[in-house]
Amino acid sequence: MDSSVLLTVMMGIGQIESAAAPAKESAAGLLALSIGISVLGLVCAFFLAKWVLGHSMGSEPMQKISNAIKEGAEAFLRRQNRTIILLAAAFSVVLFVGYGFIRSHREFDPVATTLELAAWITLSFVFGAACSLIAGYVGMWISIRSNIRTATAALSSVNDALRCALRGGAVSGLLVVSMSLLGVGGLFALVNALSAVAQTKIPLLIVGYGFGASFVALFAQLGGGIYTKAADVGADLVGKVEAGIPEDDPRNPAVIADLVGDNVGDCAGRGADLFESTAAENIGAMILGASLAASAQKAGMVFSVGIVGVMMFPLVARAFGIIASIVGILMVKMDKEEKMDPMQALNRGYYVAVVLAMIAFGGCTYWLLNSPQAPAAWWHFFLCGIVGVLTSVAFVFITQYYTESKYRPVKSIAEASQTGPATNIIAGIGVGLECTAIPALVMGAALLSSYYLGKSTGLPNSGLFGTAVATMGMLATAAFILAMDTFGPITDNAGGIVEMSQQPEEIRKKTDRLDAVGNTTKALTKGYAIGSAALAAFLLFQAYMDEVRQYAGKSLESAFPIDLSKPVVFVGALFGATLVFLFSALAIRAVGSAAQAIIAEVRRQYASLPREHDMIVFPKDFKPDYGACVDIVTKSALRRMVAPGLLAVMTPIAVGIIFRVFITPDDTLIAAEAVAGLLMVGTIVGIVMALFLNNSGGAWDNAKKFIEAGAYGGKYIKGPDGKKIKNPVHGAAVVGDTVGDPFKDTAGPSLHVLIKLLSTITLVLAPLFI
Amino acid sequence: MDSSVLLTVMMGIGQIESAAAPAKESAAGLLALSIGISVLGLVCAFFLAKWVLGHSMGSEPMQKISNAIKEGAEAFLRRQNRTIILLAAAFSVVLFVGYGFIRSHREFDPVATTLELAAWITLSFVFGAACSLIAGYVGMWISIRSNIRTATAALSSVNDALRCALRGGAVSGLLVVSMSLLGVGGLFALVNALSAVAQTKIPLLIVGYGFGASFVALFAQLGGGIYTKAADVGADLVGKVEAGIPEDDPRNPAVIADLVGDNVGDCAGRGADLFESTAAENIGAMILGASLAASAQKAGMVFSVGIVGVMMFPLVARAFGIIASIVGILMVKMDKEEKMDPMQALNRGYYVAVVLAMIAFGGCTYWLLNSPQAPAAWWHFFLCGIVGVLTSVAFVFITQYYTESKYRPVKSIAEASQTGPATNIIAGIGVGLECTAIPALVMGAALLSSYYLGKSTGLPNSGLFGTAVATMGMLATAAFILAMDTFGPITDNAGGIVEMSQQPEEIRKKTDRLDAVGNTTKALTKGYAIGSAALAAFLLFQAYMDEVRQYAGKSLESAFPIDLSKPVVFVGALFGATLVFLFSALAIRAVGSAAQAIIAEVRRQYASLPREHDMIVFPKDFKPDYGACVDIVTKSALRRMVAPGLLAVMTPIAVGIIFRVFITPDDTLIAAEAVAGLLMVGTIVGIVMALFLNNSGGAWDNAKKFIEAGAYGGKYIKGPDGKKIKNPVHGAAVVGDTVGDPFKDTAGPSLHVLIKLLSTITLVLAPLFI
Repeated sequence: MDSSVLLTVMMGIGQIESAAAPAKESAAGLLALSIGISVLGLVCAFFLAKWVLGHSMGSEPMQKISNAIKEGAEAFLRRQNRTIILLAAAFSVVLFVGYGFIRSHREFDPVATTLELAAWITLSFVFGAACSLIAGYVGMWISIRSNIRTATAALSSVNDALRCALRGGAVSGLLVVSMSLLGVGGLFALVNALSAVAQTKIPLLIVGYGFGASFVALFAQLGGGIYTKAADVGADLVGKVEAGIPEDDPRNPAVIADLVGDNVGDCAGRGADLFESTAAENIGAMILGASLAASAQKAGMVFSVGIVGVMMFPLVARAFGIIASIVGILMVKMDKEEKMDPMQALNRGYYVAVVLAMIAFGGCTYWLLNSPQAPAAWWHFFLCGIVGVLTSVAFVFITQYYTESKYRPVKSIAEASQTGPATNIIAGIGVGLECTAIPALVMGAALLSSYYLGKSTGLPNSGLFGTAVATMGMLATAAFILAMDTFGPITDNAGGIVEMSQQPEEIRKKTDRLDAVGNTTKALTKGYAIGSAALAAFLLFQAYMDEVRQYAGKSLESAFPIDLSKPVVFVGALFGATLVFLFSALAIRAVGSAAQAIIAEVRRQYASLPREHDMIVFPKDFKPDYGACVDIVTKSALRRMVAPGLLAVMTPIAVGIIFRVFITPDDTLIAAEAVAGLLMVGTIVGIVMALFLNNSGGAWDNAKKFIEAGAYGGKYIKGPDGKKIKNPVHGAAVVGDTVGDPFKDTAGPSLHVLIKLLSTITLVLAPLFI
Repeated sequence: MDSSVLLTVMMGIGQIESAAAPAKESAAGLLALSIGISVLGLVCAFFLAKWVLGHSMGSEPMQKISNAIKEGAEAFLRRQNRTIILLAAAFSVVLFVGYGFIRSHREFDPVATTLELAAWITLSFVFGAACSLIAGYVGMWISIRSNIRTATAALSSVNDALRCALRGGAVSGLLVVSMSLLGVGGLFALVNALSAVAQTKIPLLIVGYGFGASFVALFAQLGGGIYTKAADVGADLVGKVEAGIPEDDPRNPAVIADLVGDNVGDCAGRGADLFESTAAENIGAMILGASLAASAQKAGMVFSVGIVGVMMFPLVARAFGIIASIVGILMVKMDKEEKMDPMQALNRGYYVAVVLAMIAFGGCTYWLLNSPQAPAAWWHFFLCGIVGVLTSVAFVFITQYYTESKYRPVKSIAEASQTGPATNIIAGIGVGLECTAIPALVMGAALLSSYYLGKSTGLPNSGLFGTAVATMGMLATAAFILAMDTFGPITDNAGGIVEMSQQPEEIRKKTDRLDAVGNTTKALTKGYAIGSAALAAFLLFQAYMDEVRQYAGKSLESAFPIDLSKPVVFVGALFGATLVFLFSALAIRAVGSAAQAIIAEVRRQYASLPREHDMIVFPKDFKPDYGACVDIVTKSALRRMVAPGLLAVMTPIAVGIIFRVFITPDDTLIAAEAVAGLLMVGTIVGIVMALFLNNSGGAWDNAKKFIEAGAYGGKYIKGPDGKKIKNPVHGAAVVGDTVGDPFKDTAGPSLHVLIKLLSTITLVLAPLFI
């Protein structure tokens, strides 16, 4: 996407060329401002990393555990990256051969030879893939070094631990957001320097960038997601349920694999995912801004800083958002007595970031989107930004409502656990299916209100730019959100290290407090990710449709309805919906199979241990073989990520190419239209399905925690003979939690990537469909 | 739908009026032929009923149980019908007031006053609702009288029992299919006789008929579905799992409620559902046939029996299908030694019906669709019919693959049960999500191949008629399929009666054989219903779009793309997808809550019983209170069917009316277009979701049966002390089966109705959206 978006960015630049010199200077100035702030973000990330790494690494037993996690995570990431690099290399060969040798040159191609086209598209794909790999790797690198330091800090104070975990997460957040701004610009400069192609055509050559990033993000999220949940499910089922030992108990052979999983799933996968999406959404707004300003100028309307100001608006607004996020992150601290809820401390920082970002946003709209001929424009767009912020706040509240134990949904799941696992599952699925409704209403309201706010600015065709500005508003504090997201696995790991190194109860309580907050932030950021994906979807559709028009030699204003009442388009849409279901099936089943392999291994290790009252009595000298579990799950996850990944990549390609048989002289774009149907309905169903999977999983998780906190008797109850026995209500809740694991941490987050991948892959391959 | 379709039927008749007299005569002749065969179907149903009712009702203990079921079912249906009649009455007031007093008269309205319009639309709604109620009631009436006779017949021979159950089902099948042909015709004749309106405009007045039928079908299916599964889940969870007693054991207080549920859910609900859909699909094809033939005639092409022949083709083909079904039903019998699989006997009858129907179908295409100017037309349409038949065969095989224990999917669920209920659930959900893919491919292939076969006939605009003919082919043997569907609950009940009246083991084995077949046929007919809904969807969309054009005063040839790239349409589509999720949530949750009420009641009745080794030891004189359970579940089901039902009805209305705010002079149909987006994407997601729910539920059910048949140790294993204990693998499989119950018998079948309701409600209310 990132790339396609460039399309009109470039159109904007093309227009700048022909415009007066001052405009060009202000372009350079605004670009320098944005890039300067991005570099500031990187520098800030560097100092935060230095601050975190300067903390103590604690005692030797803690380090031993931390090192085991580090080794496991790095070994998995190395092997995963090898697999992904192989797949990406194979795909770049396909791309190069497809564009260079199979597809023949057409009249409206941006360059003169098929080979040059193939070379640039393939290069940008490779560059995007590489950036994505780096973003993922850096996220995990800092995360596996922050966990031990957070654990050590917890020995002295919750405040230190909180700041250590958040700042560790912020390194990854700032890096991803800043790098995504810089990456695309670099590629653009490179093509500009080495090729003779007109600037306005460059975007068509570098469309591969976004696709490369999503390609890697998809496999990283799938592989990491399968790993983390297979290990988690395996560890829970035999550890907690069968052996009756607590979470993160060192006697559980799968426990290190479980802790490794938090890093490779949540950090590495999510980092790559968000790298890709921030870049995409940035440039999506730039493309629309450039074409909006150009057609406004045609209609005699001018902007205070010219076309370029409108085009650069998203970058400038995002840059100020980085500053706001940094201030917010630095503001997070506990009260002196450390009695407040750490979530409250995080929320305070977040609200500071949001308020600052909105003030800056308002300033930017007045500065860059102000036209004397359309005096309402700037504040209409400012309202669009507010709509975006309100949408993200609404998503946060909705997610909390459906996944926190103080509200009805989680309580109803806990209540249903009294009648066993079956009613627990039925209740959880009911909650998950239900929770899609209010977010859909919010999304619909946000999309339509920002569209109509944009449309009523007095500028021509400015509705879609309104949705783009709303997306910008929502994403203004993306760096803060990402920091909160990575906060989750860091605190989870810190808790694990404290538990496994058998620290005193009071220390565990401190890390438990942070861990609970981490679970909440992880759930919230998923809601946020889905909300922004929905708002941004429209930019991405538009980019695809513009690209199809360009390659077909049609004007950007020509009609290209995606008419669902044509059978071919309807079938494309049906395949889009089915793709989401099948993809989720493969992701969930992968976790199930890999978890069974781990369960078998743990049972093997436990088989000879003595038992009493259905509970294992561990000998003092019992030493579990952690390495065997890590190894089994690594192999399993890597083998099983390939099928869903390839399915996602191949389906739109197959539809686009096979449906070319339906092309007639009256309807030359029917294959491209069917792909658009697949893309749009796939996006809708992907959003709804991801909401279902994320929130049902989160609700099951917290229903279990609610019972563990004492509801319905807690974990253990008194048996008929007065002895402590496992509470069947808790057992039922654990079943739900386990089912929810692959929902919320494998299939759900992978769907976020799938949605964006559908957009980027159709962009790259659009020329093959017409 | 049924009604809208009439629209062009009437256009056809209008053209007949102006055509030569011989054409009119042939219309009367063809109509007489179809009606004659329909009446033959009704007569045949009467004799089959007489045949079934002539069988012995067995011993007194059996009759006691049968009477308890009959009373429970009739009491529920009476109370349900009272609720539905109240809801329908309220809605008809809304319809009448909305059309008569709120909406103002428009230029293109079919009649001169709003009051007349309101009166006819409301009357047809009421008539449709009444027919649907009757169809449902008759289906259940014969079913609760066939069960005892099937059970008694099983005392002497499997063959007798098989034929008793199938013919009992066939009564309902023939009645529904024949009545649906006769009902619409009667209404048409009534309007024609009493009103001065032009015949071509009549369909616009009787559009309420189909909606009335779906309105009732929706609540009947929801109420029955919630009842049956709440009782089933409740009975299973406390009976099988907690108390460890077999299915249908008389000591289970919920067992009568469970047997009642099979009747009110599967017979009454399904009868109403299929009544509505066969009528809809019939007339959908007629409307397209009439407009096809009319435009062919304009282009100088004539048919051997004229326009009227093309228009009447669906009725004639369906009529011959009834005969083919009757022959097939009469052919079903076992071999002399009764060693064959009863499924084989049913299949033989089905194949006879299919082959006969196809021969007649080919004859009809040659007779009625033959044009000397387009010599390829008739055999192209014949091939479309074959495509339809092959599609239904493909659906049968796919459903078998995903839900029978000889294949991988069910085996994988059984295998996953070894590691507990959580992995069983994960595996089942994986299977359910996965099983959507191949049906989507088949549907896509069928839709596109019949569309392009139709398009290449040489006739103008005949693509959509090709899909209609494929639907006709698929539905040719609908009466047989419906008979097989009702066969399920009859054999299930017969097994229950045999079990509860404590007949000898060998008799139980006979009814178990039939019960297993009944489970398969129920699963197969669900696949068939979804396949035909998908194929028919296109007719229904077209009818809606034609109606919008008519009320907007546009020609039927004018462009009306449903453009998903417009934000308003996209949001409509998003709401369509979400509606399916929320509706499923409410249906599933209703079962969960009602089941918990039953579980609490059974636990209350069991509370004081002595236990040994975690199993209840029943005193000899234990008398469960069946009535209390029947009463609780009746109240619960009726209360909980209202919310999902109203949601389904109100959502499209709300979108259509609220989205009128987006109407602009450039885009007067935007609200109607958004509703079309909701309708189409809702249909897609509804189909895929129904496949997921039906097949995962079926697979879980059979995985449990597979284990009960001995896999992984069977129901009981030897404990450490040598005593018989419950097998935890079976326990895990029962959890999956229980979760699947509301999926496959409440939410899934209700979605079939929802899909069609969306079409009919949008048809009735289309004038309010423009």
